[in-house]
Amino acid sequence: MAQASKVTIVEVGPRDGFQMEKTFIPTESKIAIINTVARSGVPKIEAASFTSPKAIPQMRDAQAVMEGIERRPGSAYTALVPNLKGAQLAISAGVDAIRVVICSSEAYNQRNVRMSVAESLKTCEEILQTGRAASTAVEAVVALAFGCPLEGDIAEEKVVELTRRLAEMGYREISIADSAGLANPAQVQRLMRRLVREFPDVHFSMHIHNTRGLGLANVLAALEEGIDAFDSSLGGLGGCPVVPGARGNIPTEDLVNMLEEMGVETGVDVEGVMVASRVAQEVLERTLPSYVLAAGTRQQLYRNIEEREREKSVTR
Amino acid sequence: MAQASKVTIVEVGPRDGFQMEKTFIPTESKIAIINTVARSGVPKIEAASFTSPKAIPQMRDAQAVMEGIERRPGSAYTALVPNLKGAQLAISAGVDAIRVVICSSEAYNQRNVRMSVAESLKTCEEILQTGRAASTAVEAVVALAFGCPLEGDIAEEKVVELTRRLAEMGYREISIADSAGLANPAQVQRLMRRLVREFPDVHFSMHIHNTRGLGLANVLAALEEGIDAFDSSLGGLGGCPVVPGARGNIPTEDLVNMLEEMGVETGVDVEGVMVASRVAQEVLERTLPSYVLAAGTRQQLYRNIEEREREKSVTR
Repeated sequence: MAQASKVTIVEVGPRDGFQMEKTFIPTESKIAIINTVARSGVPKIEAASFTSPKAIPQMRDAQAVMEGIERRPGSAYTALVPNLKGAQLAISAGVDAIRVVICSSEAYNQRNVRMSVAESLKTCEEILQTGRAASTAVEAVVALAFGCPLEGDIAEEKVVELTRRLAEMGYREISIADSAGLANPAQVQRLMRRLVREFPDVHFSMHIHNTRGLGLANVLAALEEGIDAFDSSLGGLGGCPVVPGARGNIPTEDLVNMLEEMGVETGVDVEGVMVASRVAQEVLERTLPSYVLAAGTRQQLYRNIEEREREKSVTR
Repeated sequence: MAQASKVTIVEVGPRDGFQMEKTFIPTESKIAIINTVARSGVPKIEAASFTSPKAIPQMRDAQAVMEGIERRPGSAYTALVPNLKGAQLAISAGVDAIRVVICSSEAYNQRNVRMSVAESLKTCEEILQTGRAASTAVEAVVALAFGCPLEGDIAEEKVVELTRRLAEMGYREISIADSAGLANPAQVQRLMRRLVREFPDVHFSMHIHNTRGLGLANVLAALEEGIDAFDSSLGGLGGCPVVPGARGNIPTEDLVNMLEEMGVETGVDVEGVMVASRVAQEVLERTLPSYVLAAGTRQQLYRNIEEREREKSVTR
């Protein structure tokens, strides 16, 4: 499988990142961060989660966020939903696409949505139909695909079987998620190679957590299997609800930097993402874990060399 | 080129990490950290740098460190040297091997050792002869091989030419260093593929800085070109003297974790490395940037699941 020359970045900081924050982020701050990151050219933004305000109080303003944001042409604004009610709310709020999550782990699915995996599969079918009736795209996320903090290792066969059920229902866009950051590059290569071969009608993307620092190495392994769409979060926002000390998703600026440096097109301006991360740092009053945000890009470093040279020649 | 099934980890925290610390680390603390990390099974440790105490005051106790450490059978203790005098001191101190640095960038070589690259090449020849006379192994490090904060991009041809000169002198062990963390996986693949092909008699290792978070992705790219030896530093100690905000080398525990999870043998006990990193954290009074140190390994997470299950069954 040839490596893609163009990759789609899906910014999930406003959903996966924000929902890990204990202090409520004011709606206008959420909107400011989303609008700022959209201006960097990110083609797809997971802007909110339509879920129970009791389960995730941070996401209780999902509708207000969707109403308040600019809809930049060229960016699709999506939402994550746990169930049919969430899907209906997301459609009413005018999202461009819905993402529904189903876990490869029975224990985690119960914890996440209080349903068995079999019940979640039924929900996935209902949501797909609801989306079709409303002409809203529906995508599935197969979570905990590489290991689970509650169950341990996840058999590859389980992920393949869940994917098969979703594909048979009609899902054509499926995200394979390493929700607990347990994947390694060899495992990513094996599973993604198998999925791409067995389901040629499905477009796969990946959602990789950086819990053990393997995020970008796992992206590289997936790229080599032809995967061309990845979630990431501005500044590396996020964490893991069951792994203390865990950092979050792959930082968007680090992912964009790696891809662009390799000659893979993203259409995203890395410095624009860094502007959004700085806004987020001000709002959250802490430093985010992105490497590029801290050290700058190669281009920024080399611009400094040029400036020093110019200053020298002016002084002379 | 087939991926190696066994990889050599070279622990450089006691040299590349410590020398970035502004406050002098007491000799006994240096020794304690080196002894602790050696017990994890690391086969090679860069224990000190024999350089001018004025240039790098942190390394002024190199001889005392070499005298004070345990020499664990199975671990080789090496030292970095900038010049012939350093090589002589290192040999007297009883190192198992000497590493001499030469920069791909003329400007950085001047900054680093106040010599031109041509002068450094002569020094490399003298040091190789000195080492041979003393039956001490000598290795070369080609630094700034992927870009330079002073000169900008480094032509591949320059690195190939320096390697050729070193190989002609008789160097058989050469480390290719991304000293400023400017490499990307595509660039690593191109350069290492070329070097491995053009110099079949040389054994190459790599020294990769994690400045832009690409450390492990670059290791993965190099692995795929058959490279089987990598530097790393416990806890991710280190930084960059000319890039403010830059983090250091690849954390040893993160590298060992990736390789072992992929089924690549290192002979290093990742939890043993974490013990050394915690000692270093106490000595330096700050948190080190390793991911695995913060979040634990997959095995540690799964042991917690087992413990919870055992507790449940005891309670029942």
